[in-house]
Amino acid sequence: MDLHDLIAALPDGAVLTDVDLLASYRQDWARDPGAGTALAVVRATSTDDVAATLRWASAHRVPVIPRGAGSGLSGGATAVDGAIVLTTERMREISVDPVTRTAVVQPGLLNAEVKRAVAEHGLWYPPDPSSFEICSIGGNAATNAGGLCCVKYGVTTDYVLGMQVVLADGTVVRLGGPRLKDSAGLSLTKLFVGSEGTLGVITELTLRLLPAQPPQSTVVASFATLTAATEAILTITGELRPSMLEFMDSVSINAVEDELRMGLDRKAAALLVARSDAPGEFAHREAEIMAAACEKAGATEVFHTEDPAEGEAFTAARRLAIPAVEKLGPLLLEDVGVPLPRLGDLVSGVAEIAERNEVTVSVIAHAGDGNTHPLIVHDPTDADHTARANRAFGEIMDLAIALGGTITGEHGVGRLKKAWLPDQLGPDVMALTRRIKDALDPDGILNPGTIL
Amino acid sequence: MDLHDLIAALPDGAVLTDVDLLASYRQDWARDPGAGTALAVVRATSTDDVAATLRWASAHRVPVIPRGAGSGLSGGATAVDGAIVLTTERMREISVDPVTRTAVVQPGLLNAEVKRAVAEHGLWYPPDPSSFEICSIGGNAATNAGGLCCVKYGVTTDYVLGMQVVLADGTVVRLGGPRLKDSAGLSLTKLFVGSEGTLGVITELTLRLLPAQPPQSTVVASFATLTAATEAILTITGELRPSMLEFMDSVSINAVEDELRMGLDRKAAALLVARSDAPGEFAHREAEIMAAACEKAGATEVFHTEDPAEGEAFTAARRLAIPAVEKLGPLLLEDVGVPLPRLGDLVSGVAEIAERNEVTVSVIAHAGDGNTHPLIVHDPTDADHTARANRAFGEIMDLAIALGGTITGEHGVGRLKKAWLPDQLGPDVMALTRRIKDALDPDGILNPGTIL
Repeated sequence: MDLHDLIAALPDGAVLTDVDLLASYRQDWARDPGAGTALAVVRATSTDDVAATLRWASAHRVPVIPRGAGSGLSGGATAVDGAIVLTTERMREISVDPVTRTAVVQPGLLNAEVKRAVAEHGLWYPPDPSSFEICSIGGNAATNAGGLCCVKYGVTTDYVLGMQVVLADGTVVRLGGPRLKDSAGLSLTKLFVGSEGTLGVITELTLRLLPAQPPQSTVVASFATLTAATEAILTITGELRPSMLEFMDSVSINAVEDELRMGLDRKAAALLVARSDAPGEFAHREAEIMAAACEKAGATEVFHTEDPAEGEAFTAARRLAIPAVEKLGPLLLEDVGVPLPRLGDLVSGVAEIAERNEVTVSVIAHAGDGNTHPLIVHDPTDADHTARANRAFGEIMDLAIALGGTITGEHGVGRLKKAWLPDQLGPDVMALTRRIKDALDPDGILNPGTIL
Repeated sequence: MDLHDLIAALPDGAVLTDVDLLASYRQDWARDPGAGTALAVVRATSTDDVAATLRWASAHRVPVIPRGAGSGLSGGATAVDGAIVLTTERMREISVDPVTRTAVVQPGLLNAEVKRAVAEHGLWYPPDPSSFEICSIGGNAATNAGGLCCVKYGVTTDYVLGMQVVLADGTVVRLGGPRLKDSAGLSLTKLFVGSEGTLGVITELTLRLLPAQPPQSTVVASFATLTAATEAILTITGELRPSMLEFMDSVSINAVEDELRMGLDRKAAALLVARSDAPGEFAHREAEIMAAACEKAGATEVFHTEDPAEGEAFTAARRLAIPAVEKLGPLLLEDVGVPLPRLGDLVSGVAEIAERNEVTVSVIAHAGDGNTHPLIVHDPTDADHTARANRAFGEIMDLAIALGGTITGEHGVGRLKKAWLPDQLGPDVMALTRRIKDALDPDGILNPGTIL
């Protein structure tokens, strides 16, 4: 494929074809072994660059793999042979408007950078994936990312008021804007959030912001059984809206304790970290209610602190769980969610699947919204072990679907979970999805193999 | 058109062809003078009825006008000649799950009925159009309805987690579900919210609920000038998130006072009603901050109450504004919104348009989110006056677009505003909208003439 026209249409140095560089853009954090090798990587610096790339790709029917920070966990930014990997990592501008409480951001900014920039104006962008220090805001919008605060504050789509997006043929459109209410026309902004780069490439986002989060009170509770922990979760969410309600199982507690030596109870079957950001002393009162719920459910230890730094240390411990467990071996990362009353069934079902397949599965969870991350440890040098891990990976998604849940709460379908999507959505919703995809990307050049 | 097959496919009495009954389903509250006469009205009692109707309509290429309670203000439920009006008013079931804090509701239930049913479980469905006692939850979803609480709590789409929807060809699909987080596939649920019956007919909604709203503190402030009132609005929203921040101008103050005799200041140029639902004494503290902002902006009178009944009386006064102003004559109802810093420009621009066209325009507003309802009083017996009113109607939308705003914040485009939609969205977004419409409703039978 002759790249001359593409190179000519873009700023100097935007098109990379160096073999080592291409290799570094082959995969995201899902490390899909089926990744191909791109023809070139385009590092866009503007909406015009993205539009020029898509016009060229459309004219030549070359696939385009949109890419943010490459921290995705479902393989949604996996290169395919002969494609252009289009990265927005160099598009990093932000402007904050404290009056409308909105920010206009380019997609390459990291989530943490957005949080910091708006904090300078006393404002807060809530969605907080555990990877917030390394994931891009564009990728967050593409996957409708979640995080720890979602139990009270919702997910990315709840904060996207508008966007600029480049369609498959290079047309640039502006959707929505800095308005809390807008019923003019179809809800296209919302359609593009979570579309994983299959409908267009987001080049700018208008985000809704909140006033700075008040200081949080934190409760940490250890449980001898999973049943006791899930009972505490249901009691807490039935009584109030915590600002965080996180779950770690025995494997993850020990993996994190190995890293941090912070005195977590290594014998516990489960640990809950719950927080309240209610104003003033109401945070303390809510924490007391949550502590009482844990005690009533039979917690072996309950710790309660008003110290934000101490609370943040436990939150950081929970955030560290995935990398800590990863030290046990490469992980297959699940992201299954269920309606909250089925959380216990999911957790016990995952234990049964782990036992039957003779693999280690650590479960961590955004417990308050029923979104869990079973982490399947596998040994890639052992073909039989890997086969059992892959079987467990599928069985856990089957279980979530059977419990009325979802195969992905916040990571997206990507390439790794698309085989299970029809089981969740059914043939009619898949057909509806295909109709929209074909209407917006008739040549199928945008992120082929993702979702569909 | 032979209705025999349609009648046979539906329960006894579902298909109405009585001329008087057809007449009563011709228009919604927008009273579109261009309304046609339907072939028949179908009163569906189930998803199956809706599916059977759409299968029949699709086979015969008969237009279908989906209808909720008929309280729409944009003409989105206006009959066209030879169409089927498909009303969901008889689909009125609800089930509430306090554990997941969700409700599954059929579309015919009124917004107020949903609020009451969930309140029995100590829960709250926030969106609250002023018409909440007479508008249906299905219509709320179809228009992405808003209300008074949206400044803090968002709009309908923020509360719709899932739905059952019948597509143009009668296919029944289930989208989303009772999960706070779900990234599996395209965000189809969100696409159908606000689609005004042009993509499918919603037959069930899964709604997210919140714990019951705490008691509110209320501030009522009168201003001698519009400038002072808009200054107070910007100060308040810059300092906190009120649970309500409503604006009434002189015309609406006097119209409401004529009705209620509650002692509103008839000489005021503007009245603000602001509320806080922060927990415990924080509501009082926030009300003090808001009262101080009003005083600083030069309010002529500031009243502050902790009494919920008293606060509710002022809220009801604001809700009464549209019917009260309507006593001055038939109204052309606007629903324009702007980014908050442009609110003053919008209000003064509307006054200028009213003066230039020699018509009375009363402005009420959900001021905290920049969504205003200029109410244009006209005299339908006076052709010249009506022409001036219609000119003002268009000029106000032109002004909103010029200020970076929207022609509709919460009522929808319907038939009455569609001529202005291309000016707001531009040709590329209109083309994108058309592509999605054609993909989902290739024969164009769903609510033809609405939005597009």
